[in-house]
Amino acid sequence: MTLSNSVFQSIRNWDNENFLHPWEGMAYLGQNERTFAESGLGVHVVTEDGKRLIDGPAGMWCIQLGYGNTEIADAMAQQAKEMAYFSPFNNANSTPARLAHEIAKRTPGDLNHVFFTTGGSTAVDSALRFVQFRNNLLGKPEKKIVISRQKAYHGSTYLAASVSGKERDKGWLDQASHLTRFLPNVNPYTRRTDQTVDDFLDEKIADLENMILQAGADKVAAFIAEPILCSGGVIVPPLGYHQRCLEICRKYDVLYISDEVVTGFGRLGHWFASEDVFGIQPDIITCAKGMTSGYIPMGACIISERLIADVSGDNAQNATFSNGFTYSGHPVSAAAGLKTIEIMERDGILEHVRAITPLFEERLQALADLPLVGDARGMGLVGCVECVADTEADNLLDLDKSVGAMIDHHCQENGLILRPIINMCVFSPPLIITEGELNEMFDILEKGIRLATDDLTRQGVFNA
Amino acid sequence: MTLSNSVFQSIRNWDNENFLHPWEGMAYLGQNERTFAESGLGVHVVTEDGKRLIDGPAGMWCIQLGYGNTEIADAMAQQAKEMAYFSPFNNANSTPARLAHEIAKRTPGDLNHVFFTTGGSTAVDSALRFVQFRNNLLGKPEKKIVISRQKAYHGSTYLAASVSGKERDKGWLDQASHLTRFLPNVNPYTRRTDQTVDDFLDEKIADLENMILQAGADKVAAFIAEPILCSGGVIVPPLGYHQRCLEICRKYDVLYISDEVVTGFGRLGHWFASEDVFGIQPDIITCAKGMTSGYIPMGACIISERLIADVSGDNAQNATFSNGFTYSGHPVSAAAGLKTIEIMERDGILEHVRAITPLFEERLQALADLPLVGDARGMGLVGCVECVADTEADNLLDLDKSVGAMIDHHCQENGLILRPIINMCVFSPPLIITEGELNEMFDILEKGIRLATDDLTRQGVFNA
Repeated sequence: MTLSNSVFQSIRNWDNENFLHPWEGMAYLGQNERTFAESGLGVHVVTEDGKRLIDGPAGMWCIQLGYGNTEIADAMAQQAKEMAYFSPFNNANSTPARLAHEIAKRTPGDLNHVFFTTGGSTAVDSALRFVQFRNNLLGKPEKKIVISRQKAYHGSTYLAASVSGKERDKGWLDQASHLTRFLPNVNPYTRRTDQTVDDFLDEKIADLENMILQAGADKVAAFIAEPILCSGGVIVPPLGYHQRCLEICRKYDVLYISDEVVTGFGRLGHWFASEDVFGIQPDIITCAKGMTSGYIPMGACIISERLIADVSGDNAQNATFSNGFTYSGHPVSAAAGLKTIEIMERDGILEHVRAITPLFEERLQALADLPLVGDARGMGLVGCVECVADTEADNLLDLDKSVGAMIDHHCQENGLILRPIINMCVFSPPLIITEGELNEMFDILEKGIRLATDDLTRQGVFNA
Repeated sequence: MTLSNSVFQSIRNWDNENFLHPWEGMAYLGQNERTFAESGLGVHVVTEDGKRLIDGPAGMWCIQLGYGNTEIADAMAQQAKEMAYFSPFNNANSTPARLAHEIAKRTPGDLNHVFFTTGGSTAVDSALRFVQFRNNLLGKPEKKIVISRQKAYHGSTYLAASVSGKERDKGWLDQASHLTRFLPNVNPYTRRTDQTVDDFLDEKIADLENMILQAGADKVAAFIAEPILCSGGVIVPPLGYHQRCLEICRKYDVLYISDEVVTGFGRLGHWFASEDVFGIQPDIITCAKGMTSGYIPMGACIISERLIADVSGDNAQNATFSNGFTYSGHPVSAAAGLKTIEIMERDGILEHVRAITPLFEERLQALADLPLVGDARGMGLVGCVECVADTEADNLLDLDKSVGAMIDHHCQENGLILRPIINMCVFSPPLIITEGELNEMFDILEKGIRLATDDLTRQGVFNA
């Protein structure tokens, strides 16, 4: 849909005046010139002025099956007409019961109890509250600290934000700091020049063990980790990292929460990445985004039989897990989830992702040769280009901070949206992307990086 | 839809084994015989075995326009086909911009900044995080305590649960207790027999002022209050309570957060109850449930121009309000919200609620004459019958605790779902309920109370 100029001006004003966006920069509130994404088909979105762009970030790592999927839309409408809502507190409904079963069939090991939420943040919040509940019931009320990592992102409730480790997000907001500890960056790109990746890995595992010992194993409840730290800049820890972390956790009776909000539902070519990609069976998995292909809010934390056994039946002490939402297992969300799984299976989407990943990695690695690019990394259909500016340095030039935005700007001119983060650009296209579209995406990205390089060279701040 | 017996048995098993419901009683996990609500039309739901029941609680206080509304379902499907998702972090979309504007037009005073969330819990969590953010920017990092009330319910994130005051929910779950204080019960039904309602009100206002003074006004950030404490048992504070609380808040520079998750969007015959019913302009309003008629998850916290001015433009100190969700302003949720407002306006739903309220109140008050009923109270289309058992007493008989469930059981046999809470039954039917349906609802309710009375009399635990 393209909008007439005068109508659009009103809508832009309403967006500025009435819609307080997430992560709003308060200095410029009301003066934003955001691009309006008004329609979409397949991997493309169309803006208010009719520009057609490949959606590099798949919305926000979520539109697995692309835009304009009429099957999901019709499944939602059918459910809304038949049964738009039921109270999960007092009643049940077959649609979320079916979805819970389909999810449990696809999770690793004994992770069979699906606690539905409204998105990733509430999934993490509920997972952490369940851990508190369990340890209280087990008579370990002091065992409550959660270990997370620098650059981690786990959501935006007070508690979920408290276990997130992106420094920029913390400045003006309060944290439940007494409940958390943060491990240093696990990105091998940031290791000392004299350090091998193997040594770096050993150091990271020692960091975790030392932190548990320092806090006291009787005080540490859980370790929470994204398989890949996505919002933090697509940080892929060294091979074997997760398995060794899990061993440390088991050694000290620390629960392992795998936050698969981004990696779940096909992003790395599997329903869940924890076991199939990284070889671990965590205690709890959190997920959201891809589970409905982003068409409707939904999330879940999925809990193992082992943990549930600790707090149910004879161990329950008559306790109620007093946590949950009006929209836990919303039937319309569940209908979208069931249809997403059905389509992914019928159309072989996981196989497609695995088949197209080598091309994605090849094109991604080729970008590392560009002079502006310091690191090109990724896994499955998640990629990141990090420019040479050092984000850790205190004297980071303002210009360096905006390299990501410069590249994104040039790419948008040429038909591609990216997700710029400081000196990085992140992309994670819809899983249905074809070989041709993938090549087009990387062609535009490469051109965008070259154009940004030219700009920076002209301005005398970069010398290839 | 009725399900064949064998299919249904599988689904019931999946519901028990794989869907961990909110507020799950852990002792009986896996052995629930929940009623399945499989389809619905108007004010009725149909169970798995084909029973047709009036939905007393309107789902969970949310199905304002009833079940089977094809207009909302079609609006959602159309939006999902046109544009299923956009990233509110980087982009905009006209549907949520329009909804934000329509909401802002209907809020009291200068409450014009709509921060969309995924439901009521995240609305409250975001409201409280915004208050923390503002006070940090204003250089008042010590002003963080939130005053709430016994029996209040504000949601189920760690932070939202921390300001909830229902004792039964707290037993096994942790709270951010250093951030909260709780005022005693404001239910006039619980006042001393020698106390007038006016004296009770004076006492409640003094409670608030004393609590602020005790904690120190420089430590107290906000007061959060539902206009009616709904989940806590439909507690309607004495006339003038909210206005006098707001005066106290203004006197000590304490923000007033009005939690309208239940009362918003027509439940009391107005878009919002704060000003139109209770005569106050709060600083922040939270809402959810009715805003999409429950057809899809969505919530919002709506912030005043005054508060936004404190933290934006020249006062912003370059800060980002690092809070929000992948699904903030989800376009499909927003489409349902816009359609809900359109239908409510076109069909005169607010006027209908106001017109039918006197009948509701008359039928409700008549129940107070039944011997088992201690109090019958309500407002708008929210009602509660409290049986004579005293929920505060330590020696509460197990049987008394289940009076609500007994009445609900008899009502379900006769065609009505209630929401039982200990010795209470709560009901808040869809706003589209007709006079005939309302009379039918109360006829069944009265019969259910009489049947429960007979049971209790036969068991010798009640003597009318």
